[in-house]
Amino acid sequence: MPLFGGIEAGGTKFVCVVGSGPTRILARERFPTTTPQETLARVVDFFRPYADDLQALGVGSFGPVDLHPDSPTHGFITTTPKPGWQHTNVKGFLEDALHVPVMFETDVNAAAWGEHRWGAAQDVDTFVYVTVGTGIGGGAVVNGRLVHGLVHPEMGHMRVPHDWEADPFQGTCPFHGDCLEGLAAGPALAARWGMRGELLPDDHPAWDLEARYLGLAVANLVCVLSPQRIILGGGVMRRTTLFPRIRRVVQDVLAGYVRDPALEEQIEAYIVPPALGDDAGVLGALALAMDAPSQD
Amino acid sequence: MPLFGGIEAGGTKFVCVVGSGPTRILARERFPTTTPQETLARVVDFFRPYADDLQALGVGSFGPVDLHPDSPTHGFITTTPKPGWQHTNVKGFLEDALHVPVMFETDVNAAAWGEHRWGAAQDVDTFVYVTVGTGIGGGAVVNGRLVHGLVHPEMGHMRVPHDWEADPFQGTCPFHGDCLEGLAAGPALAARWGMRGELLPDDHPAWDLEARYLGLAVANLVCVLSPQRIILGGGVMRRTTLFPRIRRVVQDVLAGYVRDPALEEQIEAYIVPPALGDDAGVLGALALAMDAPSQD
Repeated sequence: MPLFGGIEAGGTKFVCVVGSGPTRILARERFPTTTPQETLARVVDFFRPYADDLQALGVGSFGPVDLHPDSPTHGFITTTPKPGWQHTNVKGFLEDALHVPVMFETDVNAAAWGEHRWGAAQDVDTFVYVTVGTGIGGGAVVNGRLVHGLVHPEMGHMRVPHDWEADPFQGTCPFHGDCLEGLAAGPALAARWGMRGELLPDDHPAWDLEARYLGLAVANLVCVLSPQRIILGGGVMRRTTLFPRIRRVVQDVLAGYVRDPALEEQIEAYIVPPALGDDAGVLGALALAMDAPSQD
Repeated sequence: MPLFGGIEAGGTKFVCVVGSGPTRILARERFPTTTPQETLARVVDFFRPYADDLQALGVGSFGPVDLHPDSPTHGFITTTPKPGWQHTNVKGFLEDALHVPVMFETDVNAAAWGEHRWGAAQDVDTFVYVTVGTGIGGGAVVNGRLVHGLVHPEMGHMRVPHDWEADPFQGTCPFHGDCLEGLAAGPALAARWGMRGELLPDDHPAWDLEARYLGLAVANLVCVLSPQRIILGGGVMRRTTLFPRIRRVVQDVLAGYVRDPALEEQIEAYIVPPALGDDAGVLGALALAMDAPSQD
C-alpha cells in the first residue's frame, strides 16, 4: 500500500504523520525541536517502520530555507537565528536516510497547500494563507502553484501605515521595528500591553488595533495579488472576534475600489480561518508528498 | 503569412500595431480615445486590410476590466469613471467585427507580458511590472503566468507608511486619499509641489520623497510576491534619478532581512526600467495575441 509522510518542522516542535490523506493517518508523533542531529534522527526513527511503502516525504519547515532546485544548498535551513540549525541540510539528510524523494517547502507554503488540497481553499486557485503567532508569515498559491520567486514570500515583514500618535509602540521586529510582524505578532501584543494576548479580554482596545494592522495587511494583499480567498491562522487568530473586525477594516480601507461580491456581501467566506486548524502544516506537508510530481 | 494585432487601449490614446514581433511590425497607428463607438471603429478600420491573415488580437486595456473567462461581461471595460466607456464590450465588439479571437488583459498585465516575451524579464518567470504615471498600476507574472485572481491586481492602491509630519500632503486618490497612487502618482507630485513633476529639478526634495514611497511599495512587493525582478515604467519613471534612490530605499527598508544577491550587490539589475520603453503596452498586447493558446 503506497504511503506518504508529512513533517511539520517548526522552531519549537516537529510533527510527523504517515498515511495517505487526512482521514487515512496510520501514525502521528510530535516532539520538541532540539539539535538538528537528535531531531532529524527522531524523524527517521518515526518513518523507518514504513520505509518499504513510503513513496515520498513532504516537509514544511521554519526558515529561512533554500527552495531553489538548482542551488547547492537546496533543501537547507539557511541563516536561521535558531542555535545549531544554521545551514542544516534537511532534505538531503532525510533522502539519504530513508531513500525517498523529499518535497521541501516553507511552513506557510505547506499549510497553504494543505488548505488547497483538503481545507478552506479547495475551490480556488489563487489565494493566500497567513499565520499570525510568534511571528507572521504568509504562503501563496497563484494559478494553482505555490509562489517561490526570488527566495520565498516574507509577508510578515511588509510595512503598513503606523499611526504613531494613536499607537506609540515602536515594534518588536529586530530587523524592521514596526513592520507588520513587529506591530501585530504575538510578542508585539504582549510587549505593547504588558501581558500575553490570551489574557486580554475581547473588549480590550488591543483587538481593534490588532484588527487595524491585520486589516491593512490583508487590503495590501488584495491589491498586490488579487487572491480569491485569504486564510488567517496561527495562535493570535484563535481570538475569533478578530475576524469580523478585520473584515470591516478591509472594507473600510479598500473603500469600494476593488469591486467584487467576495469583498462585499460575501466577505465572511473571503477572510476565513483554516479549515484544517492546527493540522494545516503537517497535513500540508503530507499533501506536498502526495502531489510530488505536480510540484516540479 | 500569419499576422497578429496588438492594441494598447488607454484612457487618452489608443495604439494599434499589426505584425509578428517587435522587429516585424507592418503598420502602426495612434489616435485619441474619444467615444467607444468612434474609437473602436478606428481600431477595426486599422485592422480590416489585414483581416485575411490575422490570427488573433491582443488588447491591453485601461480599467477596471472583467477578466473572468466565465463571466457574461468577460472582455468588458466595467465601472470606469471615463465618460461613455462604462460597460463597454471591447472583446465582443472586436471579435464580431474582425472574426478573430481577442485576448483581453489589463494594460499593465499586457506590458508585463511584453517585457517577459521581448524585454527586461525574458530570463525570469516571477516578476512585477509597475507603471507610475497619471495613476499607478502593476501587473504580475508568477511561475510564467499572468496573475488575475479575484479581479486583477490593483497595486497602486496599496497603503504604505505616510509620515504626516514630514509630508502633510493628504493624497489625491478619490477613494483612499493617501494610498500609494494618492501619494506618488503624477497628479500627487503636481498637487504637492504646485508644478508638474517634469519641471522639478533633480535636486528638489520631491524626488527623495517620491523615491521613499515607491521604495516602500517595492519592498512590500518583495515581501508579498518575492519577484525575481521589478520593472518600473511610466512617465514619472522617466526621471532616471529615481532608480538609484529607490534601490537605496528598498535596501534600507528590507534591512538585510530578505537575503539574495539580487537585493544586494546586483540590485541595479533587479529594479530596472522597461526594455521596451513606451512600447511595452502595445507590444505586450501583440505578444498576448501571439501566445494566445498558452494564456487559456
